[in-house]
Amino acid sequence: MDITTRVWELLPVLIETRRDLHKYAEAGWTEFRTASRVVQELEALGYEVKFGPEVHHPDYMDGQPSKSELDRHLERALQQGANPGIARQMAGGYTGVVGVLRCGEGPTVAMRFDMDALDVTESTDRDHRPFRDGFASQNPGAMHACGHDGHTAIGLGVARLLAEMKDHLKGTVKLIFQPAEEGVRGARSMVEAGVVDDVDYLLGAHLGFAALETGMIIAGGSGFLATSKIDAAFTGRPSHAGAAPEQGRNALLAAATAALNLHAIPRHSGGASRINVGVLQAGSGRNVTPANALLKLETRGETTEIDAYMKEQAERILRAAAAMYDVSVELKAMGSAAGGTSDPELADIVMKAAGKVPDVTKILPHGLLGGSEDFTWMMDRVQKRGGKAAYLMVGTKIAAPHHNFRFDFDEQSLRIGTEVILRTVLELVGPQQ
Amino acid sequence: MDITTRVWELLPVLIETRRDLHKYAEAGWTEFRTASRVVQELEALGYEVKFGPEVHHPDYMDGQPSKSELDRHLERALQQGANPGIARQMAGGYTGVVGVLRCGEGPTVAMRFDMDALDVTESTDRDHRPFRDGFASQNPGAMHACGHDGHTAIGLGVARLLAEMKDHLKGTVKLIFQPAEEGVRGARSMVEAGVVDDVDYLLGAHLGFAALETGMIIAGGSGFLATSKIDAAFTGRPSHAGAAPEQGRNALLAAATAALNLHAIPRHSGGASRINVGVLQAGSGRNVTPANALLKLETRGETTEIDAYMKEQAERILRAAAAMYDVSVELKAMGSAAGGTSDPELADIVMKAAGKVPDVTKILPHGLLGGSEDFTWMMDRVQKRGGKAAYLMVGTKIAAPHHNFRFDFDEQSLRIGTEVILRTVLELVGPQQ
Amino acid sequence: MDITTRVWELLPVLIETRRDLHKYAEAGWTEFRTASRVVQELEALGYEVKFGPEVHHPDYMDGQPSKSELDRHLERALQQGANPGIARQMAGGYTGVVGVLRCGEGPTVAMRFDMDALDVTESTDRDHRPFRDGFASQNPGAMHACGHDGHTAIGLGVARLLAEMKDHLKGTVKLIFQPAEEGVRGARSMVEAGVVDDVDYLLGAHLGFAALETGMIIAGGSGFLATSKIDAAFTGRPSHAGAAPEQGRNALLAAATAALNLHAIPRHSGGASRINVGVLQAGSGRNVTPANALLKLETRGETTEIDAYMKEQAERILRAAAAMYDVSVELKAMGSAAGGTSDPELADIVMKAAGKVPDVTKILPHGLLGGSEDFTWMMDRVQKRGGKAAYLMVGTKIAAPHHNFRFDFDEQSLRIGTEVILRTVLELVGPQQ
Amino acid sequence: MDITTRVWELLPVLIETRRDLHKYAEAGWTEFRTASRVVQELEALGYEVKFGPEVHHPDYMDGQPSKSELDRHLERALQQGANPGIARQMAGGYTGVVGVLRCGEGPTVAMRFDMDALDVTESTDRDHRPFRDGFASQNPGAMHACGHDGHTAIGLGVARLLAEMKDHLKGTVKLIFQPAEEGVRGARSMVEAGVVDDVDYLLGAHLGFAALETGMIIAGGSGFLATSKIDAAFTGRPSHAGAAPEQGRNALLAAATAALNLHAIPRHSGGASRINVGVLQAGSGRNVTPANALLKLETRGETTEIDAYMKEQAERILRAAAAMYDVSVELKAMGSAAGGTSDPELADIVMKAAGKVPDVTKILPHGLLGGSEDFTWMMDRVQKRGGKAAYLMVGTKIAAPHHNFRFDFDEQSLRIGTEVILRTVLELVGPQQ
Repeated sequence: MDITTRVWELLPVLIETRRDLHKYAEAGWTEFRTASRVVQELEALGYEVKFGPEVHHPDYMDGQPSKSELDRHLERALQQGANPGIARQMAGGYTGVVGVLRCGEGPTVAMRFDMDALDVTESTDRDHRPFRDGFASQNPGAMHACGHDGHTAIGLGVARLLAEMKDHLKGTVKLIFQPAEEGVRGARSMVEAGVVDDVDYLLGAHLGFAALETGMIIAGGSGFLATSKIDAAFTGRPSHAGAAPEQGRNALLAAATAALNLHAIPRHSGGASRINVGVLQAGSGRNVTPANALLKLETRGETTEIDAYMKEQAERILRAAAAMYDVSVELKAMGSAAGGTSDPELADIVMKAAGKVPDVTKILPHGLLGGSEDFTWMMDRVQKRGGKAAYLMVGTKIAAPHHNFRFDFDEQSLRIGTEVILRTVLELVGPQQ
Repeated sequence: MDITTRVWELLPVLIETRRDLHKYAEAGWTEFRTASRVVQELEALGYEVKFGPEVHHPDYMDGQPSKSELDRHLERALQQGANPGIARQMAGGYTGVVGVLRCGEGPTVAMRFDMDALDVTESTDRDHRPFRDGFASQNPGAMHACGHDGHTAIGLGVARLLAEMKDHLKGTVKLIFQPAEEGVRGARSMVEAGVVDDVDYLLGAHLGFAALETGMIIAGGSGFLATSKIDAAFTGRPSHAGAAPEQGRNALLAAATAALNLHAIPRHSGGASRINVGVLQAGSGRNVTPANALLKLETRGETTEIDAYMKEQAERILRAAAAMYDVSVELKAMGSAAGGTSDPELADIVMKAAGKVPDVTKILPHGLLGGSEDFTWMMDRVQKRGGKAAYLMVGTKIAAPHHNFRFDFDEQSLRIGTEVILRTVLELVGPQQ
Repeated sequence: MDITTRVWELLPVLIETRRDLHKYAEAGWTEFRTASRVVQELEALGYEVKFGPEVHHPDYMDGQPSKSELDRHLERALQQGANPGIARQMAGGYTGVVGVLRCGEGPTVAMRFDMDALDVTESTDRDHRPFRDGFASQNPGAMHACGHDGHTAIGLGVARLLAEMKDHLKGTVKLIFQPAEEGVRGARSMVEAGVVDDVDYLLGAHLGFAALETGMIIAGGSGFLATSKIDAAFTGRPSHAGAAPEQGRNALLAAATAALNLHAIPRHSGGASRINVGVLQAGSGRNVTPANALLKLETRGETTEIDAYMKEQAERILRAAAAMYDVSVELKAMGSAAGGTSDPELADIVMKAAGKVPDVTKILPHGLLGGSEDFTWMMDRVQKRGGKAAYLMVGTKIAAPHHNFRFDFDEQSLRIGTEVILRTVLELVGPQQ
Repeated sequence: MDITTRVWELLPVLIETRRDLHKYAEAGWTEFRTASRVVQELEALGYEVKFGPEVHHPDYMDGQPSKSELDRHLERALQQGANPGIARQMAGGYTGVVGVLRCGEGPTVAMRFDMDALDVTESTDRDHRPFRDGFASQNPGAMHACGHDGHTAIGLGVARLLAEMKDHLKGTVKLIFQPAEEGVRGARSMVEAGVVDDVDYLLGAHLGFAALETGMIIAGGSGFLATSKIDAAFTGRPSHAGAAPEQGRNALLAAATAALNLHAIPRHSGGASRINVGVLQAGSGRNVTPANALLKLETRGETTEIDAYMKEQAERILRAAAAMYDVSVELKAMGSAAGGTSDPELADIVMKAAGKVPDVTKILPHGLLGGSEDFTWMMDRVQKRGGKAAYLMVGTKIAAPHHNFRFDFDEQSLRIGTEVILRTVLELVGPQQ
């Protein structure tokens, strides 16, 4: 049977998978049910599957919820049908999954799919299809508003089709299901655990981008900004602001001074840099010297080096601001991404593969992203070790912008994405055509 | 019957009243049930009673809850037994009450009692007497942790005794029951409505102060700090901090700059000044230019003039900080108090009266308060019109510091406070002794 | 006689001119002697010459010295041999000169040469050739440490050669001698006076750039940063810092707040931006509230629009900082340049011309400047009106970096610069070759 | 002969001395000629005299000029007639002098006189008496505009009279001539060298105060503010602000941040505090990241403890501001004074003595100074060791305010001051009267 026909046949499965994941949306590091389903399916298809602590380096699991919250979400996942034997091995937020299919001599081709939902409560408007059709998120405060439900569905679809074609492949296929892409938190711990160290070709993909309609493809995304996310918690000492102001240690002013001076970090002549203190929460009462303050900030850079410069400056400023007010400060890494750009050679192969997909109406060789994605950590590792990486954008008509509580996408793009990725893999490890 | 004996007889009533008010604690501007009971009792005792909009100037009702919250609290008060005919006239937070007893030629003596609870949820510990004895607050988030339940009970006790002695009095007695003393919000609107414009002698009182035991009295409190409470809400424009930082209008940085420069207001050579930005809340997400910020601040001064200087500087700085970041700012007066000190002549009379109360063990002529009280607005008006004012502290053993969720006081002090105030009034308008 | 030979013959004249200008170095807006010599020579060569107020728009003469300083420098110029009849017409700093040679139908080709020295006192070290050979600056605090003496010498050399070839030219030649390029102050007032409004081709040139040796040429400089130079003078009110701090108006804190917030202007997503507060001078004595403060700052942008954004933000911040401290501020434009880049078409012609110069050993089509030059105002005007402009760098071995008090250059580059420019003009309006 | 008559006789000497010192005014730490004359006179009168390094602790000689400036002033002093054998022993700025007269058993009474001029250039207006009468300062930039010339003249007059009365005294008389009172720099090093450790009664005096006319006396000055003077020099790294902003280390922004946060040091509930950054000088050029910045600041406190609190906060803020910008900072103590107040017992004795002076028309028991004087270090040491101290103000008609370049005083006050001090000493160690 020809590939296009086979993918068409698979569409109902892709849709069922996507809707099931959508209904039980799980935010970053809590994808217990989602990841358990991935493990079960990959094992059933004959993949060697690794998951839990062995696919994460614990020092790089940035921005995790508290232990108790992780436990609470694990319980919810079990109530919502997660396989207990599998899910419990993910306790502590180790929700990444890697499936490997060895098909003899040949290069190793890896694909990365992200699985996490956003901290958004889904619309219950009648016009919102997921709600109308009964697959809106059952989990308040968690919603797939960025299409990762679709990414995971495509990943499982590709997994199924490659398993079916196993005998015709020459090389190794590796499917990486990553948690916590939102907030750029999950990729690095998998990279540091070595999951892409043997990879020759690496593919990442995203459903929808700007005005990209269903049928359009960008073969090689470029211009990712490196980024670092930091939380800074200042702790001082309260005092009565009228009766004993000199006895206070003012965490609010430390945070305010930090915010101002952070934005004054010198621009970098080597390329674009960014700094944003997005949140400042400080103090308890009007007449009390504020003893607590929290800053949520991020730095960015056109290159990983520029972001590193920004981050180093930021950390020094935060510590000095604390010293200035005689308060303490705790800095917490909350996520990060590298800079990067797709390799044109691999993008060319994506273009060639996409050219064979009947529904693909327009293929752009590259596109400037201008945002941040932690796929870049994987890309960077692969490229540094001599491999090639590409990030493709799969166009889809969307109902509302990404991250909006009314977000939805055209499920036909599940089929197109699956076929483009599948055909790209076949270009690399498939039968001579 | 002699006065001391009569007050002893009244003690159970004082306690019942205090416990009833304690159980149905109502925070500032929502004292619908409390004030309704006051109105009913004063009317029953033969006082001319004014309440609602006629005893408040609407321009000075600082720091009110939202309209919907006021309505919600009014409904609760009705459910908890408030007289609907009375309480509904207080809709909108007009909860002050003034009772007048005219007894012929003579001076006008006014007393002020405050009625509001704090935004505290009361302890449910077995050791906490109000909980153990069943009169802990039924209203979550509202608790009489500053003794105003006792103040109101004393006020009604004094009202009763004066009514009984009406025929022997020469002059006018005026009882002012004030809402929203916490946050220094309620007094000024009553002053601006003219309620103390005819007053020759004005008394205020507070149960408990520092280490003052039951039986101790301070006759004339002094050293009140004038204060102004301000909320400043900055509104800017969000933008994506990575993709279009130049399109944002940063409310967080405006607030941070304001906070820093507010604390740098020059000290005043005329006496103590204070400034505190107690709360700063800004921003929504790490990667968004913060479009909103809220500052809660207060200024203080050893005199009303010094506080006015601080407030004027503060307002200019807040507006300039907004202009600096091209954001808007809305300043809201949230409360205020004047500076002030008791008149020694009236304090002497209080001392004389207190000297006649058998249980009073120690009388201090004056005491330095070092905090703020909006009674000062009344004091200031009376003194400016040629009258005399005094603020007395009635010692009481307390179970925990004021404002603590385990606060409680010795109910014997209700009796002592009632007798001291009653006897002071008699010194001024009572029969020749 | 062939061109190369003729330029070789002219070398002694070029050197004499350069050394004469070097010896009587005149800083921006005070080039009275220099400009007088230019006027005399151009008139002698048969050029129509315009100078003084008619070639400057008075509203755009940024960063001028005071009236008395201008007068003092005019007197000095007269003492040092300036033609009084000419120089006095330049009183007030109108030191620009424009010479026109009309040679029939054809395009208008303009060249711009800058004439000003720097505020540097020249080295009197024996190793410093200008000193050793007796042409070091006689004017303390003024030195040609950026090669503009050479630029003017080249300009007069080109003028002479074109006059000699007048009969063979078809079009108009326009030589613009500009004051005050240092600090990017002089060009705009000439542009606003219309001196380039009829220009089809515009050339600018600079001797020396980074590691460019004698014989090397960059045909089309690019990447000029637009820039604005601002002085901000804050005026407050002094007071005794111990006895009456509240009576002061603190100009130092206004300036400090401005400096900090200026550096926090959001980065621009459209390209590179820069801000620098280079100088802050405030206050008189330790125990006096500082009543005066001066900030010297500059903004830059990859495009004129980005610089305009930076400047607009900067001005708002400066005014708001003054308002915050209740002080006044006066902003003064001290210079500016546009962004811009050479037209490749004209750069190609420069390359072709340079290719014909025997001593030119290396020609680069373009080079990234990364700095600011007010030639860009002329370039911008010409390009907006449909003309072409190019800025070329003429390599020269230098004795010390530009702006250093030991700066000197290889005088052979005078000859090479003259020939490259001359040949470029001939490509445009010369005889068919 | 009676005392009043004897002092009248001495007036011409007092005036000659004062005018000689006035003519050769010497600023703080450079009083070589002045101090040499004091040494010579005291020795001639039979005092034991100590001076030079033995009366100063070298660790506390704050705010000294540079070594080369000290040398330069020593040479000037020699040229202006200083005794070389004496003056050279003061090299390095050790210009304090102590003279002791031992007169048997009895208490030790010390008097302190300050000798330094101000950094002011004296008026050459015909109306200015010192200029008109030929005793205006011959030393440009140094002028006795605060009356210390008169203080020293009084000290030498008192010395002469006590020497004459030696046989009638019972106890020890100690005359302390102190350098560098301006900037509160000189007293502490003498205190730390132990010069007041044996003192039972200490007197200090100042000519003129506010509106005090000749003939008026304040017996016990009070309310001195403790103060600390600090210079903070920040050193960073320059860089081209356009081409490589990220390579700079911005000393200007460090200083600006410090200035702002210094002024935000919390007010102290224990009494008045002050902070003033009086001078900020930073940066070299508009387009260079500023690599240098100098702050001149002072703190004050109603008590020595409050000033110590302010100073400690200030030093922490200065260091943290440097750390924030990765620049270094050097802090230099430039002077200090303690808080303090005169002992009423000694002030009473001063009043009694002053009451015997015929020309004294009005005696005030005490007066609030509200400024700082380093006499307080001596007062503090004496009081801590159980002695008594008083600071008296000797009224005098003045021609212009203190520190003004037209300052002058009524020389009759020299006579009155001498007599009041002499009589006070006699009350303490004189013959029974």
